[in-house]
Amino acid sequence: MTPTLTVANPDWLAELAPPGLVVPDPVERVRLAVRLALENAERRTGGPFGAVVFEAATGRLVAAGVNRVVPLSNSVLHAEVLAVMLAEARVGSYTLAAPGLPVHELVASCEPCAMCLGAVLWSGVRRLVFAATRDDATAAGFDEGPVFPESYAYLERAGVEVVRGVGRGEGKRPFERYKELGGPVYNP
Amino acid sequence: MTPTLTVANPDWLAELAPPGLVVPDPVERVRLAVRLALENAERRTGGPFGAVVFEAATGRLVAAGVNRVVPLSNSVLHAEVLAVMLAEARVGSYTLAAPGLPVHELVASCEPCAMCLGAVLWSGVRRLVFAATRDDATAAGFDEGPVFPESYAYLERAGVEVVRGVGRGEGKRPFERYKELGGPVYNP
Repeated sequence: MTPTLTVANPDWLAELAPPGLVVPDPVERVRLAVRLALENAERRTGGPFGAVVFEAATGRLVAAGVNRVVPLSNSVLHAEVLAVMLAEARVGSYTLAAPGLPVHELVASCEPCAMCLGAVLWSGVRRLVFAATRDDATAAGFDEGPVFPESYAYLERAGVEVVRGVGRGEGKRPFERYKELGGPVYNP
Repeated sequence: MTPTLTVANPDWLAELAPPGLVVPDPVERVRLAVRLALENAERRTGGPFGAVVFEAATGRLVAAGVNRVVPLSNSVLHAEVLAVMLAEARVGSYTLAAPGLPVHELVASCEPCAMCLGAVLWSGVRRLVFAATRDDATAAGFDEGPVFPESYAYLERAGVEVVRGVGRGEGKRPFERYKELGGPVYNP
């Protein structure tokens, strides 16, 4: 017996964030990640987090993800993890920095937790952009885990540029909406 | 279009580490995780890492995992991630600390990387045991990412006991064998 797991976004996501969509404006890329987080809250298909992998130069969307922890009974399925897994499947490599590939970036509605920060490092993206911060997530009840200034220094040394605070105000909205709707805060 | 991903261990794993197997001796639990790492190297089904989730008191095996990064083109699929995902699927909850469940532990052939340390935290296991260390992994060419003494302090404060060094000597063997066999070191 080989148990297999299926990992998937909710069906509604493909319409809002189809692979191949081109989003040239960096601010609009962040807005899309936040929109996915908000939709995920509204539709009760997971936690209030969204993430998108883009080709950095063109803004061509490679893959997107939303938090699926509670619906799929899987604590690993944060938005960033789903976006990275699906992007790698799409390019057919375990690294988005494989020879011949364009430079990729990960744009997230919120600052990544400790697990996702590690996942960003292994993904081969060269830029990480996020809207809401660790403080915003913590205020909403979501633990971000052991992330320190040295963690970001490690990423930067590995060639991952970190861009913070773009659309932070909008980035808080998914948390607010999630709370209004009574969504579960799912830390163990 | 909703792309889905399949996440699975190699077929050979089910025979060596079937769910329900009882391993009362803590040292034998570590040996099993190391055995999986070694087999994964020998059979060329992924990187030289193995991990097992047990019920801590009885040693009943809940789920196991090996590294599948290169074969499945997926940088997230470290051994610990697979073991956690499959264990949660088995108990039907996004946390192994859900009410009514026994205490769980994660036993790994090697010290977890930054991503997996975060995954351990979110999994709800109450104990993390590993054989080979960060230094052993680094010496073998595997980057462990931003893990600091404060990271472990964070885990301990969250109620996760950390046990290191059990079977460290044996824990290095999968790295040696992987190198002998010319396996790819897959950092991005």
